[in-house]
Amino acid sequence: MFPEKAILYAEENSGRFLQELKELVAIPSVSSDSNHLGDMKVCADFVEGAISSIGFDRVQMVETKKHPIVYGEWLGAPGATTVLLYGHYDVQPVDPLELWETPPFEASERDGRLYGRGTVDDKGQFYLHLKAMESWMRSAGSLPVNMKVIIEGEEEVGSESLEPFLDENREMLAADVAVISDTSMIKKGWPSITYGLRGIAYFQIGLKGPSQDLHSGIFGGAVKNPIHALIEIIGQLKDKNGRIAIPGVYDDVVELTSEERRVMAELPFEEELFLDEVGAPKLSWEDGYTPLESLWCRPALDVNGIWGGFSGEGSKTVIPSEAHAKVSIRLVPNQEPDIVGNLLETYVQEIVPPEVEVTIQRMHGGRPFLGDLSNPAFSAAGRALEKGFGAKAVYIREGGSIPFVRNMTETLDLPCLLLGFGLPGENAHAPNEWIDLENYALGTQSAIHLYHELSLM
Amino acid sequence: MFPEKAILYAEENSGRFLQELKELVAIPSVSSDSNHLGDMKVCADFVEGAISSIGFDRVQMVETKKHPIVYGEWLGAPGATTVLLYGHYDVQPVDPLELWETPPFEASERDGRLYGRGTVDDKGQFYLHLKAMESWMRSAGSLPVNMKVIIEGEEEVGSESLEPFLDENREMLAADVAVISDTSMIKKGWPSITYGLRGIAYFQIGLKGPSQDLHSGIFGGAVKNPIHALIEIIGQLKDKNGRIAIPGVYDDVVELTSEERRVMAELPFEEELFLDEVGAPKLSWEDGYTPLESLWCRPALDVNGIWGGFSGEGSKTVIPSEAHAKVSIRLVPNQEPDIVGNLLETYVQEIVPPEVEVTIQRMHGGRPFLGDLSNPAFSAAGRALEKGFGAKAVYIREGGSIPFVRNMTETLDLPCLLLGFGLPGENAHAPNEWIDLENYALGTQSAIHLYHELSLM
Repeated sequence: MFPEKAILYAEENSGRFLQELKELVAIPSVSSDSNHLGDMKVCADFVEGAISSIGFDRVQMVETKKHPIVYGEWLGAPGATTVLLYGHYDVQPVDPLELWETPPFEASERDGRLYGRGTVDDKGQFYLHLKAMESWMRSAGSLPVNMKVIIEGEEEVGSESLEPFLDENREMLAADVAVISDTSMIKKGWPSITYGLRGIAYFQIGLKGPSQDLHSGIFGGAVKNPIHALIEIIGQLKDKNGRIAIPGVYDDVVELTSEERRVMAELPFEEELFLDEVGAPKLSWEDGYTPLESLWCRPALDVNGIWGGFSGEGSKTVIPSEAHAKVSIRLVPNQEPDIVGNLLETYVQEIVPPEVEVTIQRMHGGRPFLGDLSNPAFSAAGRALEKGFGAKAVYIREGGSIPFVRNMTETLDLPCLLLGFGLPGENAHAPNEWIDLENYALGTQSAIHLYHELSLM
Repeated sequence: MFPEKAILYAEENSGRFLQELKELVAIPSVSSDSNHLGDMKVCADFVEGAISSIGFDRVQMVETKKHPIVYGEWLGAPGATTVLLYGHYDVQPVDPLELWETPPFEASERDGRLYGRGTVDDKGQFYLHLKAMESWMRSAGSLPVNMKVIIEGEEEVGSESLEPFLDENREMLAADVAVISDTSMIKKGWPSITYGLRGIAYFQIGLKGPSQDLHSGIFGGAVKNPIHALIEIIGQLKDKNGRIAIPGVYDDVVELTSEERRVMAELPFEEELFLDEVGAPKLSWEDGYTPLESLWCRPALDVNGIWGGFSGEGSKTVIPSEAHAKVSIRLVPNQEPDIVGNLLETYVQEIVPPEVEVTIQRMHGGRPFLGDLSNPAFSAAGRALEKGFGAKAVYIREGGSIPFVRNMTETLDLPCLLLGFGLPGENAHAPNEWIDLENYALGTQSAIHLYHELSLM
């Protein structure tokens, strides 16, 4: 079985493939909004139909506590590699709606892009795999690999139903390699395989000083202000160079090898463009590392929110009773959220001023992910992308966290290929989300090649 | 003229004096709320009527841009001391209404207290002066001093109309001494003369980093978080001992004399009670000073509010574009708000991290006040309070700021007696405001004595 005919089929049907994606995007499957509960069902049905139409042996609507998971399998290649494809049919909310140039649920083409909520995250990216499978089936009558497909509806709200589903169906889901297209290429024309993700440990720190807000004139000078106490604590979470100052937090951090650093240094990171995207007067990153290394491979502590006292117009003279902050730490291999959480709690309890009471709430945690590049699946994926895009594939990491990747690969004990066909700046969680139309087409062809390459492992 | 008959009159009429105060409290003269514009007029009329009924030569309703000032004068003691009494008929808002045990505008007696909005701040306190004047007039046919009375309606909203009124009427308002009853005694049974007030300089500091909120996974590690930048700046505004670290800020601070410290050390400051009122685990004040010295005579920097990023439920992973704080510095003699403002601005501009842009907004300033205790008006007031309360008067300061005191004494060039008949914990700006009924009666008698003592200066 060679992919030429499937590629031809995909080329000949590319117009319809795009049309179908538009129909899928038109379903407002916002998983976080209970007003869209019916739409979630409509979208799951659409996905079920799309998988059925490929000619799968089995397609199943798995009910969960929230939104259904669509599962399908085609096991017509006994002895061949088994691929587990993951995607999600739910999308982010669309607010603020007024910033959309065209309606979020009317996919519209402009300048080689398809705009609409979910176009790249993740409807376009999983759908191109379904179209790649269809291309194989229609052109060759079968797939070169066995295929198991999970398209869930809760990725944007924490994938809560996914873990028990994986856990309860280990046997059914057994595979040789997982494929997920829900990430981005480093740059247009640079097909990318993401082999590392940072994890996260997220906390809320609350301080309580006085039992109620106090007049800062009457009490200022003899009462510790909880905002100052909070500032003192947060000020001690990082040192002057921006390194995290929590004792022991770097103990489990795996340092980059010189080979990794060499490879990373060859990747296209344009500081000017990055600064432009950020829009700040200046960048800053960890001493001794490059920006990409800092973004992908080093822990980063950020205050995601802070509040306390008076924030209205004018000048209220108050010493507030409480002050709060949301603090997150991006984790890298081999940091564990629980261990980092313990370190942070111990440290904060140690440094908290005696004039306030502290509460630390652990919000959520996700472990970092690092693929084993020596696994042949990675080189297979590299060859597939090179054939699909006509450019050498690069191996990249991402600074963000996709906690279920680590959970899935560990629960099912398989390597995971993160093949992203998105692009930086595609507004995945913002107004005017888009997918590059060329990437949609070349992604479909790359997926066709991928199944072939994986069958040769 | 001796005060005995006036005292007798006041004792005999104390029930009516209280009844009239209840009527005054019943008028909801909330100056900040445009819904109460009519009530402000009703209240000013009530005050005008009350002054007229004493038998003053002249009573005048002075229209302003906001709420009228009621002015009255009785100049029937040629050659005698002229007293300028200041008070305000406007009150604070009543929110949160549900915390009031009885309706804020139905003055009600409980446990020797009169509850209601404005009872102590300032209706009860200026009204007892009007009743002291009435007692003199009815019992002796005249006052021992010339009297000029200003009762304004904008104290709770910044006294904006007062300054031009003072400025334009210097001649009319010329007096030998100003009397204001709008403060508190240090403790029940300790009649107090406040001879010092802290000033204030209030700022809003805003930082802008990225041009929009960024995903902390994708950007965390190579972008300076404005919240961290704000924390760094605020962390450098004070040193480890809580002293203000802005260079030059203590240059104009007048150190306490050993005599002042000795007198202050004899005042009743009960740390346990104060801690109880604060409700925090522990107090803290400036090294080398007592709590009272810190509260009254030392500069104090407080963050009155801080905000930035995500403060909702859950865990949004964002590097915010902006972070803000409201910062105030309580000033002591001879600090000037403008100079301190310049020092703060220069310092912040110096220490602001290069990755963010800072804006500093000067919100409002008020100069500190310090009376000259060697002025005979202070000893006269001391004798009057001792006679009124049957206890030795003490000379205290306050940590709060009443900017117009300094403005008034400078504009009109006179000493100012702050004779407070309130008590700590009287909820002046909070629900369930009250005035001690014994203090209302003894305050009236003290005022009767005061005019007499001032006539002897």
